Order: sequence, then C-alpha cells, then structure tokens
Amino acid sequence: MLCLPKSEPKMSKFWSQVVRDLDPYVPGEQPRDKRYIKLNTNESPYPPSPKVIEAVRGAVGGDLRLYPDPTARDLCHTLARYYGLEAANVFVGNGSDEVLALAFYAFFKQGAPIRFPDVTYGFYEAWCGFFEIAFEQIPLDEGLQIRVEDYVHPCGGVIVPNPNAQTGRLLGLEAIEALLQSQPLRVVIVDEAYIDFGGQTAAGLVGRYPNLLVVQTYSKSRSLAGMRLGFALGQPELIEGLERAKNAFNSYPIDRLALAAGVAAIEDEDYFRVCRDKVIQTRQWTVDEVKKLGFEVVPSSANFILIRHPGFAGRDLLEGLKARGVLVRRFGNERIVDHLRVTIGSDDEMAAFVQMLGEVVG
Amino acid sequence: MLCLPKSEPKMSKFWSQVVRDLDPYVPGEQPRDKRYIKLNTNESPYPPSPKVIEAVRGAVGGDLRLYPDPTARDLCHTLARYYGLEAANVFVGNGSDEVLALAFYAFFKQGAPIRFPDVTYGFYEAWCGFFEIAFEQIPLDEGLQIRVEDYVHPCGGVIVPNPNAQTGRLLGLEAIEALLQSQPLRVVIVDEAYIDFGGQTAAGLVGRYPNLLVVQTYSKSRSLAGMRLGFALGQPELIEGLERAKNAFNSYPIDRLALAAGVAAIEDEDYFRVCRDKVIQTRQWTVDEVKKLGFEVVPSSANFILIRHPGFAGRDLLEGLKARGVLVRRFGNERIVDHLRVTIGSDDEMAAFVQMLGEVVG
Repeated sequence: MLCLPKSEPKMSKFWSQVVRDLDPYVPGEQPRDKRYIKLNTNESPYPPSPKVIEAVRGAVGGDLRLYPDPTARDLCHTLARYYGLEAANVFVGNGSDEVLALAFYAFFKQGAPIRFPDVTYGFYEAWCGFFEIAFEQIPLDEGLQIRVEDYVHPCGGVIVPNPNAQTGRLLGLEAIEALLQSQPLRVVIVDEAYIDFGGQTAAGLVGRYPNLLVVQTYSKSRSLAGMRLGFALGQPELIEGLERAKNAFNSYPIDRLALAAGVAAIEDEDYFRVCRDKVIQTRQWTVDEVKKLGFEVVPSSANFILIRHPGFAGRDLLEGLKARGVLVRRFGNERIVDHLRVTIGSDDEMAAFVQMLGEVVG
Repeated sequence: MLCLPKSEPKMSKFWSQVVRDLDPYVPGEQPRDKRYIKLNTNESPYPPSPKVIEAVRGAVGGDLRLYPDPTARDLCHTLARYYGLEAANVFVGNGSDEVLALAFYAFFKQGAPIRFPDVTYGFYEAWCGFFEIAFEQIPLDEGLQIRVEDYVHPCGGVIVPNPNAQTGRLLGLEAIEALLQSQPLRVVIVDEAYIDFGGQTAAGLVGRYPNLLVVQTYSKSRSLAGMRLGFALGQPELIEGLERAKNAFNSYPIDRLALAAGVAAIEDEDYFRVCRDKVIQTRQWTVDEVKKLGFEVVPSSANFILIRHPGFAGRDLLEGLKARGVLVRRFGNERIVDHLRVTIGSDDEMAAFVQMLGEVVG
C-alpha cells in the first residue's frame, strides 16, 4: 500500500510480467479531507449490532499474542447452522474479495474462458488478470439484466453477481438453477454480496448442485466492512479446493477479533432484520423521490440504486453532488457512463442526497 | 477453511490443475483439546502492550461499518518514521505471509528459478507452487548456516530468512550486502520475521539497494500474531509493484482494528524492548539448561532454538513432550528430522519444558 499520492505507474525492471500487465481494481474513494455524506461504497448506514461490539471488545486481550484458529472452526459452524448446512460446506476469508480471488484460482484457472456480465463488479476482470484467466464479458440486455440463455454454452465457468453489483437487478432462483444445469462440468459462482436486500439466496441449492459456489460478505447487510469477512458455501469438494488454495497463500487471513465479530453478527438475527428492513424502506422512498426529479431508476434489490437523468451527463451529476458534500460512484464502463450508483444511507442522508440532487438538476 | 477432520484430499473435477498440484503449507498445531505449554509456533509469551489493548478497544465501535483505509496511510507513516524511511518505502499486509506471497508474485514470477535455503520457512516452496515459480533449494552448510557464495550466480531472485526460520542462525549485514551486490538485476528478499531477537535489520540498506525488500511481521516480537500484520520496506518501485499486486487481489486486507493495533505497537517502544530483552535472556537460560541435558543447540538469534540429542530420535522427543503437555515443532525435512524447534516462552514455561525434556531423556 503505497502511501503517497498515486501517479501513473512507471514500470520497473524488477516487476514480473504479470504485474506489469495488471489492471488493478480501483475501490471507491475513502476521503480523508472532509466529512462527506458517503454513498459510494455500499456500506451500511447502521453500526454493527451492539452484541457484535460487545463480543469484539471482549476478545481484545492478551490472547492477541496467539495466532487465530486457522480453520475458523467456530465461525464455520455458526454459518453452517444459519444456512442449514454442515461446517464442511463453509469456507471463510478476509472479505468476499479474498474468497472470490481464491475461488477464481481454484476453479477458473483452466483452459476455457470464463463468463461474466459486461456490467458487473470490476474485480472479476482484475482477478482474471491476476491469475491469467481468459474471460468473455456477456452483454446485459437493454434493461441491464442478465440473460441466462447467453451463458449456457460450454465455457470455463461462470460468475454472476446476484443482485448485480452495479445495477442492483436480481435473478430468481429458477434462473440460477438454469445456469447450474447448463454448466454441470464447471463451477458457477453466485456472488451474493447484496442478496439480503431483496433476493433469495441460492444457499438452499448447495445440496443439489456440486458445481454451485455461493459467496457472501459481512461488509453490506452485516455492517462490518471494517472487519473484512466473507464466506463461501458449497459442497465439500469445492470447499476443499478453496482450502488448498488458501493454505498455499496465507494460512491465517482472519484475525481473532474478526472471528469473534463474525459469530456474533450471525447470532443477532433480530438486529440484522431491523437494519435490512430499514434499508429496503429507505430505498423505496429514495426511488420515489429521484423519479420525481426526472431520474430513471434501474429496479434494485440491493442496498444501492443505479440512476440516470436524460438531461445530464453522469460526470456533471457526480461532480455537482461532490461539490455539495455527497459522494456517489460512477463507473468508466461505456454502458453506464451516465449512471450514478448511489448507496442507500440513513433517512437523513438520503433526504440530504435528494435535496442536493434536486439542486444539481434544478 | 474446511471445518471437518482432514483426510487425504480426493481430487475434484472442478479443481484447476494448479490446485490439484499444490502442496499447501501446514501451520503449527493450534490445539483445542486441552491446555498445552505451547512452544510450537513462535508466538510471544507476553501479551501485547497495554497501549495496544487500549487503542484497539478504542477503535471498536460504529465505524466498523465502514471499510478500512485501503492505503493504510497512518500505519505506513508510523512504520516509515520508526525505520527512518518515507511512507513510499512501506507496504503493509495481512501478516508477513500475505506480504511475502504478493512479493513472490510481483518479483519472482519470471523465467529463471529463484533460490532459497534447503532448510527454511516451508511457505517459500508453497508460494512457488501457488504461483508456478521455479526454484532451487541451496543446501545450508554443515553448521546449518547459509553460505552466501552459493547464491551469487545469476538466477530469478533470492529469498533468505534472517535469522533463518528453522535454525535461528543469523547473517550479518555484510553478508546481506554481498548478496544484494551479486544480484543487481533481481530482487533479494530478506525475511526478518525474527530479526528483533538478536540481529540487525537490513532496513538501513533500503536507500542504497533498489533490489532489496525487507519483510517483517507483528506476530513475533510485537506479540500480535492474532491480529495479522506484516510489512515490507523497499524503494518505491518495489512498493508500487506490491501495491499493484495487492489491488488486483484484495484491496482491504487489514481491518480497522489491526490498523489501530499496528500503530500503537510501534509507538510503545519501551514495552517492546522489555519483552524482547526478556525473551533473549530466557533463551540464554534455556540453551544452558538443555545443553546440560546433553542436547546440541544451533546458535540462535531468534525467539526459538533448534535442538537435537544424539541419543534420541526427533519423533520420540516430540511425542514424549506432547504426552507431558508440551508442544514443540518438528519438521519433515531430512536434514533436521531429529531436531526440535522450541519457541522461547516465559520463564515458567521454559522451566517446565526443561523439566519435561529431562524426563523424556532421563
């Protein structure tokens, strides 16, 4: 992590060819200069459960001198119980990013290109670069939805975010099953980072589809982006593949406090439901308000909305909001270059956002 | 992380070839069945500084809903000040294992084989497997010391642990400089996980050698194995290479609490010195005692000692100690198959260890 302002990288004779060729992922801005209303990285507006805070505080002590449990046994068992699975169906990692990176390595580093949508989470392409995996980006339809029939031909594997990480659009489980059935020899990863905000998880399909890997995160609906926790659910042979990869890369990626947080967050189901329901309500209110301002809104089942105004360029909207103290996200992808992705914050934040947005287009 | 008892992995048709071929690293046992005197993973016997505990407790709060700073700015600045460098000379990661893994990728994934000792940290070979990097293992001399002259011919790069992770033997800075001068076109990684226990860091050479990467960890002398923190020091072009790799793998590997711990641990220099000096004293006492029991001791500058008894097989010693409630480490490597690697614990732990060892050989 370079700590100076970034500039165009000069190549170095010491870099391996793969590192020269990389096109790293660029995360959403984490501003340090002033307080923004921060609607750019899909964090939860609500703090972690008080029981999580208590569990983590309780774990801060002399035992931090000892390595964490490399098998994350308690956390795996907790997640397994929650999803009606066995611990052998659960793999945990340092955020769903690490879980997905290891899954790309374990299952997609094969001859044939893998497939994912042309408008999706930018890290999919970065991991293909990192591991030298060939890929095809399949265009979303005109409504920015995944067309499952475009994924059914033989390939190296498929990853779909559900809901999609940049559009918020959801696939139903019948569409996921169609995908799984069409790729029986390849792994299909369903990246459910946002599933809790309106979709149905494919976790219940794990028993029937040996090629299914469901990946989720604690960074969104569990209010723990700051603790770095994610997990995968799948049949034991997939989990073993992930474990083999992890143990040849970094044996202990989850620290003692994150392990404690992960267990406590799953156990406080009531708090989870309250926060999630509130985000869903606030999303509906926000959608109604921005439509009144003349915006088009892609139907969202996530904790963000993707919006566009027919009369304004995305860049101008982004900058107008930033000048007014509101950070949202805009992507370089041509198809959504005039869209803004707006995280659903608290009611107050969204009221301020709507007001500022009204000023920008007013 | 598979949560069931391990068995020989069955291969899966879903695994990529690289994952089938992996030979993952096996970390030291983290027992759950009973309380052992745990001298097998080189953790500190002393808790983290009270100021670290306080800093981490203070960071546990609602902000855990937000992603950590992906550039780890404060931590990089703190480490830079400590080592007399600039923040642009510092890269931080999830334990030195993650830092080293990314360094193997960024600098060693080239055509020519890299070199490291035949008796060393087992993860070096695992990372070569993970990234498909060719390597040559260079035999230590008969005293289990690195012979620098064996590394001077052109190759893909060099990694030496200093002190060596399995022997505890130290190289002086003149030997490190000879290595750096003999490989001007390749990166030389000096893995200083144990340097604080008796060696001189090569951090001061960073300004003069663009091919030098120094890697350290918080898991040993900083009493923070449970928080997962490590770092690299090098010239900005090497740090940029690491950052490129990191940002194509996992943007935020260090959580908010680990960042807080990392800063506080460096700032409490007095506490660090007291703990380190105590380990060094206890090491000397332990060396003297085990010699009285007839053991040979490899000269150690680390927080462990490598010992052998001419009359006993390593396996028998290991099992005799385990039966008496003491865990130590033994490696499969033929050259040290009758050695035990014994972490230096507290005075009480080492007194108990010496007593049990006496029983085993008595």
